[in-house]
Amino acid sequence: MSEPKTANTLNALSSPRDVRQAIRNDLFRSHTSGLAKGYVQCNLVILEQELAADFLLFCQKNPKPCPLVAMSDAPGNPRISGAGKDVDIRSDVPQYKVFEHGKLTAQVNDVQDIWQDNFVSFLLGCSFSFEEALIDDGIEIRNIAEGVNVPMYNTTIACKPAGAFSANMVVSMRPMKASDAIRAIQICSRFPNVHGAPVHFGDPELIGIYDIDNPDYGDRVTIKPGEVPVFWACGVTPQVAISNAKPAISITHSPGCMLITDIRNSQLSVL
Amino acid sequence: MSEPKTANTLNALSSPRDVRQAIRNDLFRSHTSGLAKGYVQCNLVILEQELAADFLLFCQKNPKPCPLVAMSDAPGNPRISGAGKDVDIRSDVPQYKVFEHGKLTAQVNDVQDIWQDNFVSFLLGCSFSFEEALIDDGIEIRNIAEGVNVPMYNTTIACKPAGAFSANMVVSMRPMKASDAIRAIQICSRFPNVHGAPVHFGDPELIGIYDIDNPDYGDRVTIKPGEVPVFWACGVTPQVAISNAKPAISITHSPGCMLITDIRNSQLSVL
Repeated sequence: MSEPKTANTLNALSSPRDVRQAIRNDLFRSHTSGLAKGYVQCNLVILEQELAADFLLFCQKNPKPCPLVAMSDAPGNPRISGAGKDVDIRSDVPQYKVFEHGKLTAQVNDVQDIWQDNFVSFLLGCSFSFEEALIDDGIEIRNIAEGVNVPMYNTTIACKPAGAFSANMVVSMRPMKASDAIRAIQICSRFPNVHGAPVHFGDPELIGIYDIDNPDYGDRVTIKPGEVPVFWACGVTPQVAISNAKPAISITHSPGCMLITDIRNSQLSVL
Repeated sequence: MSEPKTANTLNALSSPRDVRQAIRNDLFRSHTSGLAKGYVQCNLVILEQELAADFLLFCQKNPKPCPLVAMSDAPGNPRISGAGKDVDIRSDVPQYKVFEHGKLTAQVNDVQDIWQDNFVSFLLGCSFSFEEALIDDGIEIRNIAEGVNVPMYNTTIACKPAGAFSANMVVSMRPMKASDAIRAIQICSRFPNVHGAPVHFGDPELIGIYDIDNPDYGDRVTIKPGEVPVFWACGVTPQVAISNAKPAISITHSPGCMLITDIRNSQLSVL
């Protein structure tokens, strides 16, 4: 019998299935960054079925902040076979946030006790995938180099509303030299399902960011001389849209505690 | 018998062959911008055979400023079948510049009288192709909107030397909003044979440009509030390299007076 996988034995070489099993067995409750290198990690949104069509439309209209990678096999069904045969979305994320009427009411390690037969799960692509592609190309990702969370900002860029859902776009920022930014635009353009090409670079005020050193979410990073801030649409956007919609109940992953899928990052490449 | 094509009858809808014939018959001696829309127009360099290998290597090492589209069928042969079956490079460019030992000694409408049996012709991609792709995507090209030549600048970006040839890169500049610049990077990345993606954007001093309003070649254009200057490698670079090498004789097209080929712009797209 093989040893059960714990936080100590999980690493970049672990398979997505091994990581999910460790999480499901409550042996791992932390950030998933750096685990199962090469595989897509996803943001999670769970809503009641009555809001699912609106949210799906919101994703369809705003693919850069809300790139839909996979959905529940059916309402109430905790399987998401598009992400991995054995996925049980009630237990395979290290930490969940539960919101009632838009307010955080619980932070839990599984949601089996509160599962409803009308829950619909959405998996959205996240920046881990494109950060991996950029690092593999030799581009420094400052938040990783400095060991902090990526800085994220509210902007004045309006998303297209859909039913109950509306939000201004939240963006993440990574500073780099212009020549690296040009290369990053090329690389990220190949990955529309993980936010795609940046939405802005340069002057932050043009998108309503007035203090680059005070991000609305995440941590400040150093911008070196000769670098420009480069902004990507961010997966916090749908969370803002849900917070604005104030559904009776909704569930998301906790930041950094993602679902690791069986999809390889390279499989999301359109080119 | 069809009417001979003149400057008055040539336009965007003319075929490349009709334009070349009009030029060959001395019925057209002007700028080729806007003629035979959809077809690749090329920069021309003619060198003696003893320098051809070095120049070819210079192009190979510096594909962004020197994207080689086609070459003479053989030394001394005025045909370039890779550009069009009937091309006669001695007569099919509206105006040529002749240089001796790096100095301009003549500006002529054909080079039949001075043709040598050791001449090798190089056709290099030019910005007309990617400007057309950007305009077709709805992006304003300021030099076209303002009816002037694109501004071009010497930089501190060193090209890789090859034999007799060395130069710092010359760049062209087009100002645009960041979101248009991101789109322009995506579009131009598909066209490596016409300079490809930009090499820089933003702070001009980072590449040795200290007065953006005083270009070294071409004309000043307006940079509007909220726009950034975006810089592309420019076909003037090989001319600088040739001027540095001071060959006994060399011939180029006059600026804006290009060879129009039978190659469609879309055929140069790598994606």
